[in-house]
Amino acid sequence: MTLAPRFEAPYVAVIFSSLRTPGDRGYEAVARRMADLASEQPGYLGIESARDESGCGLTVSYWADEAAARAWKDVAEHERAQAAGRATWYSDYVVRIAQVSRDYRK
Amino acid sequence: MTLAPRFEAPYVAVIFSSLRTPGDRGYEAVARRMADLASEQPGYLGIESARDESGCGLTVSYWADEAAARAWKDVAEHERAQAAGRATWYSDYVVRIAQVSRDYRK
Repeated sequence: MTLAPRFEAPYVAVIFSSLRTPGDRGYEAVARRMADLASEQPGYLGIESARDESGCGLTVSYWADEAAARAWKDVAEHERAQAAGRATWYSDYVVRIAQVSRDYRK
Repeated sequence: MTLAPRFEAPYVAVIFSSLRTPGDRGYEAVARRMADLASEQPGYLGIESARDESGCGLTVSYWADEAAARAWKDVAEHERAQAAGRATWYSDYVVRIAQVSRDYRK
């Protein structure tokens, strides 16, 4: 992952916290495809992701507004990936939708 | 890390995205201490953190409101850790303050 830069506030952050099941089972290829597909959507600003050895991970995607974040959730190919995530790749996850009011950088 | 549960919305998320410099240099012990100290603060809800092999990491702390998040930033021992972070542990970081409007779980 690389750090996403600052963006013009306000903007939206979708915080996806997850626990992976063991084994790849097609996950990595779809995760890469979803990151690429997200980056093509209207209102996409950026994405950050990290996962530790225990399988716990955080992915935060940034969007111009809530409508853009919601539209991405409803993209058909993304909906299929979400269904596979629920069924196969994640033993647990929490999604939080947040509005960023300010940011700063080192 | 473990997943933070859902909390009663609205609440505040502080998203800290960082790139570590090489080597520990006292980092891990202070990071553990800061997680413990944060958990004792008024308005603390939870924390999630993951870092991948490349040194890129995400830490999200959750707070009842902006005043609680800001008060934690100003705790003296935390301020010293932040200074060490700027000087020694992080080659780059971005901090984003966001209000979570809703969340859902698998």
